[in-house]
Amino acid sequence: MVTVPAPSSAFASDNAAPAHPKALEAILAANDGTTPSYGADPFTALATARMRETFDSPNAEVLFAFTGTGANIIALASAVRPWHEILCSDIAHSLLDEAGGPVLVSGASLLALPSDDGIIDPALLDRRITRRGDVHHSQPRIVTITQSTENGRVWQPEALAEFIDHAHELDLLVHVDGSRVANAIAALDVPPAQAIADADIVTIGGTKNGMLFGDAILVRRPEHFTGIEFVQKQIGHLASKHRYVSAQFDAMLTDGTWLRAAAHANAMAARLSAGLTLLGLHLASPTEANEVFVDLPVEALTAVRQHFIVHVPDPHKPAARFVCSWATTDNDVDAALRELSKAHDRII
Amino acid sequence: MVTVPAPSSAFASDNAAPAHPKALEAILAANDGTTPSYGADPFTALATARMRETFDSPNAEVLFAFTGTGANIIALASAVRPWHEILCSDIAHSLLDEAGGPVLVSGASLLALPSDDGIIDPALLDRRITRRGDVHHSQPRIVTITQSTENGRVWQPEALAEFIDHAHELDLLVHVDGSRVANAIAALDVPPAQAIADADIVTIGGTKNGMLFGDAILVRRPEHFTGIEFVQKQIGHLASKHRYVSAQFDAMLTDGTWLRAAAHANAMAARLSAGLTLLGLHLASPTEANEVFVDLPVEALTAVRQHFIVHVPDPHKPAARFVCSWATTDNDVDAALRELSKAHDRII
Amino acid sequence: MVTVPAPSSAFASDNAAPAHPKALEAILAANDGTTPSYGADPFTALATARMRETFDSPNAEVLFAFTGTGANIIALASAVRPWHEILCSDIAHSLLDEAGGPVLVSGASLLALPSDDGIIDPALLDRRITRRGDVHHSQPRIVTITQSTENGRVWQPEALAEFIDHAHELDLLVHVDGSRVANAIAALDVPPAQAIADADIVTIGGTKNGMLFGDAILVRRPEHFTGIEFVQKQIGHLASKHRYVSAQFDAMLTDGTWLRAAAHANAMAARLSAGLTLLGLHLASPTEANEVFVDLPVEALTAVRQHFIVHVPDPHKPAARFVCSWATTDNDVDAALRELSKAHDRII
Amino acid sequence: MVTVPAPSSAFASDNAAPAHPKALEAILAANDGTTPSYGADPFTALATARMRETFDSPNAEVLFAFTGTGANIIALASAVRPWHEILCSDIAHSLLDEAGGPVLVSGASLLALPSDDGIIDPALLDRRITRRGDVHHSQPRIVTITQSTENGRVWQPEALAEFIDHAHELDLLVHVDGSRVANAIAALDVPPAQAIADADIVTIGGTKNGMLFGDAILVRRPEHFTGIEFVQKQIGHLASKHRYVSAQFDAMLTDGTWLRAAAHANAMAARLSAGLTLLGLHLASPTEANEVFVDLPVEALTAVRQHFIVHVPDPHKPAARFVCSWATTDNDVDAALRELSKAHDRII
Repeated sequence: MVTVPAPSSAFASDNAAPAHPKALEAILAANDGTTPSYGADPFTALATARMRETFDSPNAEVLFAFTGTGANIIALASAVRPWHEILCSDIAHSLLDEAGGPVLVSGASLLALPSDDGIIDPALLDRRITRRGDVHHSQPRIVTITQSTENGRVWQPEALAEFIDHAHELDLLVHVDGSRVANAIAALDVPPAQAIADADIVTIGGTKNGMLFGDAILVRRPEHFTGIEFVQKQIGHLASKHRYVSAQFDAMLTDGTWLRAAAHANAMAARLSAGLTLLGLHLASPTEANEVFVDLPVEALTAVRQHFIVHVPDPHKPAARFVCSWATTDNDVDAALRELSKAHDRII
Repeated sequence: MVTVPAPSSAFASDNAAPAHPKALEAILAANDGTTPSYGADPFTALATARMRETFDSPNAEVLFAFTGTGANIIALASAVRPWHEILCSDIAHSLLDEAGGPVLVSGASLLALPSDDGIIDPALLDRRITRRGDVHHSQPRIVTITQSTENGRVWQPEALAEFIDHAHELDLLVHVDGSRVANAIAALDVPPAQAIADADIVTIGGTKNGMLFGDAILVRRPEHFTGIEFVQKQIGHLASKHRYVSAQFDAMLTDGTWLRAAAHANAMAARLSAGLTLLGLHLASPTEANEVFVDLPVEALTAVRQHFIVHVPDPHKPAARFVCSWATTDNDVDAALRELSKAHDRII
Repeated sequence: MVTVPAPSSAFASDNAAPAHPKALEAILAANDGTTPSYGADPFTALATARMRETFDSPNAEVLFAFTGTGANIIALASAVRPWHEILCSDIAHSLLDEAGGPVLVSGASLLALPSDDGIIDPALLDRRITRRGDVHHSQPRIVTITQSTENGRVWQPEALAEFIDHAHELDLLVHVDGSRVANAIAALDVPPAQAIADADIVTIGGTKNGMLFGDAILVRRPEHFTGIEFVQKQIGHLASKHRYVSAQFDAMLTDGTWLRAAAHANAMAARLSAGLTLLGLHLASPTEANEVFVDLPVEALTAVRQHFIVHVPDPHKPAARFVCSWATTDNDVDAALRELSKAHDRII
Repeated sequence: MVTVPAPSSAFASDNAAPAHPKALEAILAANDGTTPSYGADPFTALATARMRETFDSPNAEVLFAFTGTGANIIALASAVRPWHEILCSDIAHSLLDEAGGPVLVSGASLLALPSDDGIIDPALLDRRITRRGDVHHSQPRIVTITQSTENGRVWQPEALAEFIDHAHELDLLVHVDGSRVANAIAALDVPPAQAIADADIVTIGGTKNGMLFGDAILVRRPEHFTGIEFVQKQIGHLASKHRYVSAQFDAMLTDGTWLRAAAHANAMAARLSAGLTLLGLHLASPTEANEVFVDLPVEALTAVRQHFIVHVPDPHKPAARFVCSWATTDNDVDAALRELSKAHDRII
């Protein structure tokens, strides 16, 4: 009797990966005696200072949440009132993959702008700012962009700075969804602050970077996010045993661990991407960070999915996403390339 | 030079305690290779089965959240539409300590009923069900009670069964906030299912019981909580690296670890409570689980707070709460009694 | 064959009354040619000026809504964010008779304070302001009181001023639900501004005063109600053919028509109240404006309801409400007294 | 001294028009004595019956609201829970001109589909129904279309039936925003039921048709809109003096008055449209009901706006909207054509 092995989750997402040893060690080290809860502990003080220093934002408030969705909701909902409009790209996680959470919690409308794999032309902002003060129409207040984007693209520092400056000229706040900002920083090889330019608020992904759980919120212009700590509490993202999230952040941000983890994930994606190109397969999006998108005919896609769990972003377009993480190995990549090669052969 | 040590967090809350060794071990054991995310992993399957078996609820749906506040919001918001009313006690965590989260996420009204330390007379329910079908008035739909209560009281199984049955007769659903349900079960020494009677939905506290983080939701009548998994996602409580919450629950529920942890916390509270009585101090509420409430004149309270972080539930009533956990020791209790004795002497 | 006549709606509510001739005349007069919609018409300019002048509030913003519920929601929702708390009396219309609308639209919690027929002791405010800045708890932001109250009581100017000043000292905004403010002003016989003291925002009832429809919102401290005009639009209360609501207000406020209408309603209530007392019946609340509440044994209540539609505020307490309007006549009152007398005889 | 007259509101919108004599007469006739409030009056019973008969919907529930925005919100919010998605066209009033009200009140997401002047290709629905049951994504539940559309187009009965049937196949409910449905019915010259096909819920515009205020909601499949009467109350659209809205509807629907009013408005629009074409101006959208959209260079637009208030739907496209009503005259149209001719001459 032949049993068919379950498909591998090696490329399903960077959140399929195990926790990074440094994150686990930090948790074990923090697990000593009682500490004040809800963030009044020394681990949180350290992580907060580390975060400010890392992003060269000495006056920022720092909050922590359990998930990227939670962090995004907290950032966006605290910026708006229900008659405001949140602008995002047409592939934004906050639009497509948070089940309407930002809309529910904020009461505000969420409006998608066309984009090139999540990169938005700043001129599109002007196009939306046409009915300021018109009581019949929601008022644009904040724009959220993603670095690196949901399609694995990286905003270049100049483009990002230009976009954000233009948004500010239009009296819009800017949120950067940095669920994978480490991958962007590693890819750009710039100081972290350059990868977020003059963003007013940034969510910093810990989970996808290698932590067990945890995303941070860097509030660089707190005056525009009044009450943000209440929103955090109102959706249950103020951790009681807070040290376990802070300690991980502190550890990962120390000595560049987080960026090495991200750089490794990026390198694995580059290896996969290069292999696919050699095979003659077509990339659905350029590979700039730790995600690889490849066009695959339906038949090939079906074959590949017998071996690998892969996300298919749009059921109407046969293309698969492969995500690499700090834990992906050369062997993983090569195994994937073998299956993709077989699938490819089948379709020629 | 004399430095004053910071007050101890030994009794600040059960969430000031470190993680239980079994919970940590489970996380380390789960940290092996990639797994599918968002709950499609074997650890979650095990934890789900374990939860159903523990609570003798073979058909229940089981979801996990990061915090008790998150779990409560998910349970309550999925039960109601905005014209419904959620009933609770006048000391309910969902009323006083979730910053209005259940109201924001559900859109429904939250109404407090008078209680005896969180124990509600079932006859009060009738008093509220007076305008059924009246379009001008919110419609009561679900009542939430807490086991053990916020004041450390335990619903006796008969009283609980009577309350829940009566609520059902009135066509009300019942939610049990079981943030400390382990302490209630241990105190009652009954099978877990008896400590929640015929509740329709129960949130099961993991964090306060000894986990790093995590509370579960046992949905025993899923037909009344349609879409609950969407609410979970909408507030960012669907863990991506889901195994780390499930594995902890599986481990703690195995071989009664969770109940031993709770029984220990209860025993420490009993020791503290007995000591206070011997000192001639007055308990603000009977000690039935792991929390001790003691009346203290303002001056004594101030003195005690120099040594221990304690919660003062009502700023208008000088009474302090001491919470014991799985990690509280006899020495901790005795040290507290010494300080309380000194404070007491001062005020006589 | 005997046919039983339907019970009379003469005392069902002041909104059972027909429209006042002056309101109808104003509509007919306004119905001439096209005008800009949404309030950019001359009738609205006049009504706005008239409203400011009447309430001695030259800098107030004035908005109009279709109903008292709409007006209350707009006033309250614009004052708060979802982590705020709205305080009200235990018989407030916004609590009991708006189906949770203020909670749904604002996302904030609504909390009832004990009251004497809607009159709240200012010291109770201090009792609620105990956890300012505590992120676990909703933050009180505005208190709403009703003038005249839902039980037909009138806040005396000194008591009202004291209450509002104390609220301001506690950094609370004050909303006056003036659905029947005309009755209060007429009863007090003071300049309108005295009947609302230093309230920050007041909803002014037109419907119950004699209009076909329409309640106004006097925003005396607009800086605390930013975006109020968007809330008005968001719940569909920005009238397109706006002149029809404004023209009525302008007409009713001119030459004291509104106050004469209210004074007449009050006088009819006084006549009814006096008659009831003569009959030996007990008033459930003192009659101070245009509403009369009388205790009636269940049997008598049943008998009376065969002849008159009356509201029974609390199904657990057999007491009936009789409301008088601009259109109530001596004959109406005397007919009611006859039936109440019969019902009373039956029960002795 | 020369005074410049204010621009005319003759074409600003159909809600700039005065009330139709029949609507006013109905109000005057209804203004007799007291009646039960909140819809328990005979006028409402008559209007309800009339509405059911007119739309051949004997089992429909009928509610009334004050405005089209209110009616749309009530219809949409009662259909969805916060994790649902409401689909609409890219020019939908509910998307662009209700200040986010449907989103705020429902908590659900609103998503625009591309359209041809509001007419949506049914195949676009399939394109959106791609992630059914995926907990990460909002779930499409209802689609709203407008008849006649915001750009003055009319859904042909076959196209409408096909669209709605296809939506039903996809398990979507269908709402028809009939703010100007009378104009569509008059233009199509079909029985009213054909102009709404098998829609599940329809909002019927009274205000734009000639009433002082008032839009109705025809709930043809009440089982999908549970609690709709609570939503109506929660946003303050349950009229207390309900007879004044019902009586107008009853009168306008009697003997075809509403359709004659609409047909006249359509005829005036046709006259204007024909005149523009003769002038050599280009229509931005075909004129099929009572709205005319004409492309105008900026300079001409500026000139015209000195004489007429006209809506410019998109500030980035110089095109003006002229709306005709029951009260528009040949003279009005000819005056407009004269000004447009002058403006046109200027630009050639």
